[in-house]
Amino acid sequence: MNSYGTLFKITLYGESHQEAIGVVVDGMPAGININEELIAQDIEKRKPKDIGTTPRKEVDHVHILSGVFNGFSTGSPIHLMIKNENIKSSDYSHLKKQPRPGHADFVSQVKYQGFQDYRGGGRFSGRLTAALVAAGSLAKMILPFKFSNKLLQVGTLKDMNRLDEYLQDIVEKGDSVGGIVEVRVSNMIVGLGEPFFHKLDAEIGKMMLSIPAVKGVSIGDGFDGIELLGSEFNDVMTNQEGKTLTNHSGGTSGGLSNGNDLVIKVFVKPTSSIQKEQQTFDFEKGEVDALKIGGRHDACIARRIGIVLENTVAIVLADLYLINKAYQK
Amino acid sequence: MNSYGTLFKITLYGESHQEAIGVVVDGMPAGININEELIAQDIEKRKPKDIGTTPRKEVDHVHILSGVFNGFSTGSPIHLMIKNENIKSSDYSHLKKQPRPGHADFVSQVKYQGFQDYRGGGRFSGRLTAALVAAGSLAKMILPFKFSNKLLQVGTLKDMNRLDEYLQDIVEKGDSVGGIVEVRVSNMIVGLGEPFFHKLDAEIGKMMLSIPAVKGVSIGDGFDGIELLGSEFNDVMTNQEGKTLTNHSGGTSGGLSNGNDLVIKVFVKPTSSIQKEQQTFDFEKGEVDALKIGGRHDACIARRIGIVLENTVAIVLADLYLINKAYQK
Amino acid sequence: MNSYGTLFKITLYGESHQEAIGVVVDGMPAGININEELIAQDIEKRKPKDIGTTPRKEVDHVHILSGVFNGFSTGSPIHLMIKNENIKSSDYSHLKKQPRPGHADFVSQVKYQGFQDYRGGGRFSGRLTAALVAAGSLAKMILPFKFSNKLLQVGTLKDMNRLDEYLQDIVEKGDSVGGIVEVRVSNMIVGLGEPFFHKLDAEIGKMMLSIPAVKGVSIGDGFDGIELLGSEFNDVMTNQEGKTLTNHSGGTSGGLSNGNDLVIKVFVKPTSSIQKEQQTFDFEKGEVDALKIGGRHDACIARRIGIVLENTVAIVLADLYLINKAYQK
Amino acid sequence: MNSYGTLFKITLYGESHQEAIGVVVDGMPAGININEELIAQDIEKRKPKDIGTTPRKEVDHVHILSGVFNGFSTGSPIHLMIKNENIKSSDYSHLKKQPRPGHADFVSQVKYQGFQDYRGGGRFSGRLTAALVAAGSLAKMILPFKFSNKLLQVGTLKDMNRLDEYLQDIVEKGDSVGGIVEVRVSNMIVGLGEPFFHKLDAEIGKMMLSIPAVKGVSIGDGFDGIELLGSEFNDVMTNQEGKTLTNHSGGTSGGLSNGNDLVIKVFVKPTSSIQKEQQTFDFEKGEVDALKIGGRHDACIARRIGIVLENTVAIVLADLYLINKAYQK
Repeated sequence: MNSYGTLFKITLYGESHQEAIGVVVDGMPAGININEELIAQDIEKRKPKDIGTTPRKEVDHVHILSGVFNGFSTGSPIHLMIKNENIKSSDYSHLKKQPRPGHADFVSQVKYQGFQDYRGGGRFSGRLTAALVAAGSLAKMILPFKFSNKLLQVGTLKDMNRLDEYLQDIVEKGDSVGGIVEVRVSNMIVGLGEPFFHKLDAEIGKMMLSIPAVKGVSIGDGFDGIELLGSEFNDVMTNQEGKTLTNHSGGTSGGLSNGNDLVIKVFVKPTSSIQKEQQTFDFEKGEVDALKIGGRHDACIARRIGIVLENTVAIVLADLYLINKAYQK
Repeated sequence: MNSYGTLFKITLYGESHQEAIGVVVDGMPAGININEELIAQDIEKRKPKDIGTTPRKEVDHVHILSGVFNGFSTGSPIHLMIKNENIKSSDYSHLKKQPRPGHADFVSQVKYQGFQDYRGGGRFSGRLTAALVAAGSLAKMILPFKFSNKLLQVGTLKDMNRLDEYLQDIVEKGDSVGGIVEVRVSNMIVGLGEPFFHKLDAEIGKMMLSIPAVKGVSIGDGFDGIELLGSEFNDVMTNQEGKTLTNHSGGTSGGLSNGNDLVIKVFVKPTSSIQKEQQTFDFEKGEVDALKIGGRHDACIARRIGIVLENTVAIVLADLYLINKAYQK
Repeated sequence: MNSYGTLFKITLYGESHQEAIGVVVDGMPAGININEELIAQDIEKRKPKDIGTTPRKEVDHVHILSGVFNGFSTGSPIHLMIKNENIKSSDYSHLKKQPRPGHADFVSQVKYQGFQDYRGGGRFSGRLTAALVAAGSLAKMILPFKFSNKLLQVGTLKDMNRLDEYLQDIVEKGDSVGGIVEVRVSNMIVGLGEPFFHKLDAEIGKMMLSIPAVKGVSIGDGFDGIELLGSEFNDVMTNQEGKTLTNHSGGTSGGLSNGNDLVIKVFVKPTSSIQKEQQTFDFEKGEVDALKIGGRHDACIARRIGIVLENTVAIVLADLYLINKAYQK
Repeated sequence: MNSYGTLFKITLYGESHQEAIGVVVDGMPAGININEELIAQDIEKRKPKDIGTTPRKEVDHVHILSGVFNGFSTGSPIHLMIKNENIKSSDYSHLKKQPRPGHADFVSQVKYQGFQDYRGGGRFSGRLTAALVAAGSLAKMILPFKFSNKLLQVGTLKDMNRLDEYLQDIVEKGDSVGGIVEVRVSNMIVGLGEPFFHKLDAEIGKMMLSIPAVKGVSIGDGFDGIELLGSEFNDVMTNQEGKTLTNHSGGTSGGLSNGNDLVIKVFVKPTSSIQKEQQTFDFEKGEVDALKIGGRHDACIARRIGIVLENTVAIVLADLYLINKAYQK
C-alpha cells in the first residue's frame, strides 16, 4: 500500500531512524534529462531554516541508484535514496507508555502489535516527505506546467508579512499552529483526469491527505464558496480554449482539468509535538497523566510543507498526463 | 479507471441515457445475507422528494444478476444493475454548441474528441451515484460500524429547521445553492488505513472527491480548525481503548482510525444547472452569448447527496476492513 | 480479483446458472466504430457444433448496455451482457456429496464455505469465456494486428484431417481428450510488453492460465525446444526491422515483442466431465465410491477453445498497446 | 510495471551496471522474525559454482535498509539492496551496432529510443533475479509450506548423474543448452487462488514467464499429459482433505490449490550468449554479418535458476495466502 500511480508509479519506503528512506519512481519515460540540480533545489525548499521550523539540520542528499545513464532516464525504475544521518535513537521507549496526543503512537502500537519502529515517529514521520519531494522533481521534468505554492493563513494570521513575529510568539509559548497552503498549477491543458475514480479532484484529494498533518483539501473555492449561489459559483467560459472569467471551480470540471489554473487549498493541522505540558493516558499507571515532549520540533510545519504539496501534486499530474497521452491520436 | 478498491473492489459503468447503469462488486465475502430491502431503503433515501430537489421521478430498482444464491453472497462478483427508464433524449445537441457553465460539456468534448454520450450529462451525470449507493449497502453488510449523515449548512443557512423556506426562495429565483454535509461513523475499531498511500484520510478524500459536485473534504475540524493552537487541537487520550476528550482529528491519527467517531465534512457546490439565464461561449457564433437551460433540476443537490457520501464511505471502509483482516493473528 | 488490465481493463462477472454473465470493458478509446457483427462472428466460433462438442444449444446474444453511442465508443466503460437462457437447475446438490474429479467442486466448497453457486460449475464454468470472447472482439478493434488460431494436436492425433473420426471414437467410449492449440498474431510491432512484471510473455502466461482447462503455456518452441543448443535456438536477425530467420522465441525477446509473429502454444487438458464411471470420495459414506456424471458435455473442449485463447490474447495486447502508446513521442 | 502483488507486493529496480539493484517488499506482516541467514543461504544457492555456470564471482550481500527493527518486521516496507560490485563497463557500445541474437538489445533500443542502459544487459540482465531470491526468502518466512526444486532435463540429457560430463562438452563447444526445472511445494492448504484473474495457475504462469530465459510453464503434467484421456488425467480424490491418488493436475483445481503438492514445470531456453560465432544484422554495414560475443557466460543457466523459480513461486503464494486470510472467519 506504499505505491501510488498507474503509469507514473512511485513506491515509498523508510522509517526515520533506519538506515535510509527512499522512493522508486517507475514509469518515467526514457530520454528525459535528469537534472540533479533541480532535485537539490526542491529538497532545499523543504529544509527548516525560518522561525517556527525545527533547528535540526537535515543533509538530505538524494542518491540516484538506478534508471539514469549518461544524464538521461533509461526507462527503468529510478531509485532515489536519502540516508538517515545524525539520528539519535537514545530513548523512545516511553512512547509505548505514554502515547503522544495527535501522533500515531497508539494506533500503530495496536495495528502493528508492538513491532513498529517507534523511533522518531518511524514511518509516520514527516521525514518521508523528503523522498516525495525528490520524486515530484522528476515528475515536473516531464510536465509542461508551471507550479507554485504559497501560505494563505497561519493560525489567525492572514497577513503573511507579519509571519515571523507571529510565529516567534507561538514558539515562545511552546505551542504550535496550523496553516492553509495554496498550490497552483498554470499552463494547464484540458482533459487530465479519468472518470469515475481517477478524476483529477479525487487523485489530488487522495495525495494531499496522504501527507502527514494534512486534514482538509479543496479544489477552487471549496468550503469558502458555501455562501455563493449557482449563478455566482458557475465560471463563465469566454473563449474556445475554455478560459473562464472566474475560477471558483479551481481548474476542473466534472473531475477533468479545464485548462484554467489548477488551484488547491490544503489545511495543515498544528504540529502535534509541542513543548508545553499536555495530558495523555499512561499505560503503566492506568490513568491520565501529564506528558512533556522533549526534542526540537517545528512549531508551524505549514511553513515548509508547501514544496511537499506542490511536488506531490506534480506526481498526480504526471500519472494522469501519461494516461491521457495513451488516448491521444 | 472506473474501478475502486483493493479487495472490496467496485467497477462502475453507465451513462444516464443508455440502457442501464450498474456496478460490479467484487471481493464480497461468501456467506453474507444479502438483504435486498436494505438496498431499497438506501436507494429510497437518495430519491428526490423535498423542496429544492428535482420533480423528476426515478424508479431505480436494483437488479442483482450474479453473486447471490439462496439469499447469500457466493463469493463471486455481485452485479447490481439499474435500468434507465423514462429518459427523454429528444435534443441535447445544443450542448456541443453552448457548453453549460460548471458542467463537463466542454472538457468531455475535448477529451473524448466529440464521441462522448452528452445526453443528460452522460457518464458525468449524478445518476451514476444511485449504483454507488447500492454498492455501499453491500459494504455496510460486512461492517460492524454505524453510519449516519446530516446537513450542516446550506448556502448561508445554518439552522436546518428553516431549510424548506430557504430553498423555496432559491427555487423561485431560478438559482441553486451548495451545502456542507457531515458523514459520521460510530463503533469504529482502531487501525483501519494502510500507510503510506491507503491511509484512511486519503481514501476518504479520494472517494468523496469522486462524487459529482463535491469540491472539498476534511476529516474532523478541517479548515474550521485553523485558529486552534496545537495545545487545543491535540485530542487528549483518556483510556486504553484510545478514546479522546475531544475529536478535532475526526477519528484518525497518522492516517489510521483511532477508535473514535470518524467525522467527515464535505463541501457540495451549488448545482450547475440553473433556470436563470447565464453566459457562455457559443462555438457557432464564436463569442460569448446568453444561455438558458431547460429541464427540471435540483436546486440543492446537497439535500439528497448525504446517502451517497455515507455509502461511499462504507465502500472505503469495507476495503480497508478486509485488508486489515488479512494481517490479524 | 475479477479484473484484468491496466489501461484496457476488463471486469468479469457471472455464474452459469444465474441471470446473466458479462464483462465491463474499461479503457476503450473513444471514437472506435463498434461493429456488433464482428462480436457475433467471434461468439459464433465458440459455439459447439462439431463432433466432440456438446449438443447443448447456447444462444449467447451479446447486449451492449453502455459506452456506445451512434455506433462509436464513447470513452466510457462498455458493458457487454449475455443472458443465461435454457438453464436447468433441477438438481446439483449431489456435487456437495460427491465432488467430481478434475472439477472445482471440492476446493470451492472449502474456499467459499459452502455458499458457492454450485449449479453447472457456477463461476468455474467454461461459460464465462463467452463474455471474454466478446471483450476480445472489442480489443481487436483497436489493434492493427492479425489474429488466428489452430489445433496442433488432440490426444495422440497430430493429423487434424482425421479429427472427426478420432473424436467419434472418444465420444463412444464416454471419455474425453485434451489438445494443444496454437495462437498466432501477425503484423506485430516492436516493443510491446513492460518489464519487469508486465512482460508480454508473462501477461500471456497469466491470461492463458486463467482460462478453464488450460494447464500449460509456452511462447515459441517452448518445451519442444529442449533439445536445441543455443546456437540453434537463437534466432538470427536479418534486417533492420528485426525480422529473424527462424522464430524459436515466438516473437518476443526479453519479454518484449520483437516484430516477428507472436506464437503461443497452449495445453488444454481433457474435459473433466466424462460419461464413463469414475471414482471419488463420498462425503456421506466417508469412503471412495463410484460416480456417474450425467449431462451432455464436450469430449474435447480444445476443439472450440481456440477463439477464447485468441481473443484473450487480444485483450492482453490491447492493454500493452495502450500502455506503449503513452510512451511514444 | 515493476511491481507485483496485491497485499504482499514487491517493487524491483536496478540495472546490472548501475550502483545497485534491489527490491522493496511491501505488505510483510509485522512481527515476523527476519532471519538474515536464511536470505544469505538462498542467495548462495543462486551463485555460479558448478560446471556450466559462469566463472564470474558475485558477492551479492543483501542490505536491509528499512522495515526491520530488533530483528522483527515492523509492518513497513522492507527495502533489500544489493550493490553492483566488480562491474566492468569498458565497452558495450557495439551492442547498438550488432544486436546479439536472443537478447533484448534490439527491442530495447527501439522501445527506449536508444536511452536504455545497455551495459551488461541492463535491466534485462539475469542479475536482477538475485533481488527476487531475497524477496522470496521473506515470502517463505510467512508461509507454512515446504519448497524445493530440481532439474528434470538438460538438453537431451535426462539422467542428472551425468550432468557435469554433459555440460563440459557443451562448454568446450562454446555453445549453451536449455533445461526443464520442476518446482514443488508441499504441505499446501486448500483454496489459494482468486478467480477469475488471480487463479493460482495464472499467477504462477505470470511470475515464471517474468523470469529471464523462461519460455514455457505448466502446472502438473502440462504438455506431457497430451496423450492421456480424461479418465486417466482426472485425479481421484481419496479422503476428505482432498488428497488424490495421482497428481496430473499438479495441485490445483479450477485455479485453486487443492491441498496436494503444487508441481510446476518450467522450460528455460539455452543461454543466448555463446562463445561460438553467430550471425546478426549489422546496423552500420546494413547487412548480416558475423558476431563474436566475449565475456564469460553461463552455458546452462537452468543449472542455477532453480532457487529463483522456487522463491518467486513463494512470492506468488505469500500474496495469495494473505488475500485468502482476509476471507477466513
